[in-house]
Amino acid sequence: MIPTLEWTSEGVRFLDQTKLPLEETYVLATSYQQVADVITTMVVRGAPAIGVAAAMGVALGVTRSQAATIGDLSTEVRQICQVLAATRPTAVNLFWAISRMEELFYTLERKPDATIDGIRAAMIAEALKMYDQDIAACRSMGAHGASLLPKEGGVLTHCNAGALATCGYGTALGVIRSAVEQGSKIQVFADETRPFLQGARLTAWELMHDGIPTKVICDNMVASLMRRGKIQAVIVGADRIAANGDVANKIGTYGVAILAKEHGVPFYVAAPWSTIDLETAHGDDIPIEERAAVEVTHHAGKQLTPDGVGVENPAFDVTPAKYVTAIITERGVLRAPYTEALQSLETAAVNG
Amino acid sequence: MIPTLEWTSEGVRFLDQTKLPLEETYVLATSYQQVADVITTMVVRGAPAIGVAAAMGVALGVTRSQAATIGDLSTEVRQICQVLAATRPTAVNLFWAISRMEELFYTLERKPDATIDGIRAAMIAEALKMYDQDIAACRSMGAHGASLLPKEGGVLTHCNAGALATCGYGTALGVIRSAVEQGSKIQVFADETRPFLQGARLTAWELMHDGIPTKVICDNMVASLMRRGKIQAVIVGADRIAANGDVANKIGTYGVAILAKEHGVPFYVAAPWSTIDLETAHGDDIPIEERAAVEVTHHAGKQLTPDGVGVENPAFDVTPAKYVTAIITERGVLRAPYTEALQSLETAAVNG
Repeated sequence: MIPTLEWTSEGVRFLDQTKLPLEETYVLATSYQQVADVITTMVVRGAPAIGVAAAMGVALGVTRSQAATIGDLSTEVRQICQVLAATRPTAVNLFWAISRMEELFYTLERKPDATIDGIRAAMIAEALKMYDQDIAACRSMGAHGASLLPKEGGVLTHCNAGALATCGYGTALGVIRSAVEQGSKIQVFADETRPFLQGARLTAWELMHDGIPTKVICDNMVASLMRRGKIQAVIVGADRIAANGDVANKIGTYGVAILAKEHGVPFYVAAPWSTIDLETAHGDDIPIEERAAVEVTHHAGKQLTPDGVGVENPAFDVTPAKYVTAIITERGVLRAPYTEALQSLETAAVNG
Repeated sequence: MIPTLEWTSEGVRFLDQTKLPLEETYVLATSYQQVADVITTMVVRGAPAIGVAAAMGVALGVTRSQAATIGDLSTEVRQICQVLAATRPTAVNLFWAISRMEELFYTLERKPDATIDGIRAAMIAEALKMYDQDIAACRSMGAHGASLLPKEGGVLTHCNAGALATCGYGTALGVIRSAVEQGSKIQVFADETRPFLQGARLTAWELMHDGIPTKVICDNMVASLMRRGKIQAVIVGADRIAANGDVANKIGTYGVAILAKEHGVPFYVAAPWSTIDLETAHGDDIPIEERAAVEVTHHAGKQLTPDGVGVENPAFDVTPAKYVTAIITERGVLRAPYTEALQSLETAAVNG
């Protein structure tokens, strides 16, 4: 089991993803501010993982709080949630997780027999439950999605939607793992995913860890490989899925989706329900994080570009629903029209 | 004037493109074998530049030869040409340039008054003529192609098809330079062009040198920028153009062409006639160089990927003619159907 993040008695322990694959080192966050830093600097990344990280951050903040009254703690919780919500804008799991923790707190504090210790224990239990649910959701996505992948062939993935992007098993890589467990012979092609190299560094590392055949390619090689018949399916994760099925995911996903369509290759998105944002009608309404130029201009301290060159560094893009063959969730596999499919599964869950 | 390569009395001097943009250093090749090394290791790269480099290599080999008779020199020339032709397989300019030098030699050696000194002088003169013709061809492409670019807007280019890929001025970047000289307000977007980073390192460097506004983007950001309306045209160079108009160029070009088509953005190719290979009927018949994995797994000595990961590293891809809006050459602008357009300009040149 890859220890992406873990609640411990000392704080929240994170596998440092900025150092992989060359070093397996850990960062222990002992305050909610440190959890926020860990999210901002991408020591932990991946929409489901940062959701649970933020939930643990709220639990940690409440646990470490010096507040003498529930009223004071309530003020602090508001502050804790604001700091954690200001880390990264695109993945909706972050806001979903923080809201779930915040709402639990407000429910708990209104109880007549509420105690600070009781609230602390309940908040920790909730974060741990979200951790377990995340892994269960990944396993369920794997079970639902495995049969969509080829029995034998090449599967392309972009960025890292694996154990390292979740609490374990992975979304897109979970579906690949599940297919492999069922006997499919899959050659994974991992886009290196500039500028942060999640594919070259993280996807390659965790799939090699599991003995799944993996080749790293540069992002610009996808079309060439598709034309040469080396890729039978694409599967990626998501950072936010709008109500109409538009998918925000790591920069480069949209281009891969177009190339897949042009070559008749199916394009799948695997994401837990917490990634679906029915409040956002359309992909164009999803805020896209622009990250620092230095991620593009430098690597490992080495400068790549001329001094002072201009750079664009959008961290995500939006793939319109029309390019998406299916969305794989823990509730099942959805197909177009997505507005209806998403609404119907949401209603079923609320009613069920 | 950017001194990409230069014939000197000591040998052929190359601006070391593996060191740009951080260092402007030069490599002096004093033997034809060293010229071959310089081409193989990409100290010089770009189809037109390596053509003229190889021609200078042949001239250098003939100049430095110790052969006592024209017969011995003839044997050596065959060897020199074989070594230079074995450096890189895709760019046809290399073979075109070597053939032109070789044929000149065979013409000269058959003359009744042939002398070794006379042959040497003529071979040097021919290589220098090819150098001048290359710059003239770039200027002519610029004049023909400038009006195709927007008067104001974003122009994307992939890899480096600039002064550094030619003897000066550039093919794709020559057209951009020409448009800017005519008053167009162009914002260039340079794909960084993994793994060798010709865009991030070379295109950015030479356009900043000329004061042309340039932003570097990762290869996987193209679709996002096109969707946001930031790119009004794409222009790239070529390493070989088949008789049907299929274009071999730096890996990633084909993907960019598909994205351009999907967004209704025109996709232009600028190349001298020496890049056109009417002997090769179809793009699928163009040999594609596969380069060493280390180019993908490492940068500047830093390892990016896990130990032992598999890698693909095709250096070029083929863009089918149907994605090409126009081909800009020194003989004029060609449009589909390319088989007829290319044949007609070839016939006109032969007859004219």
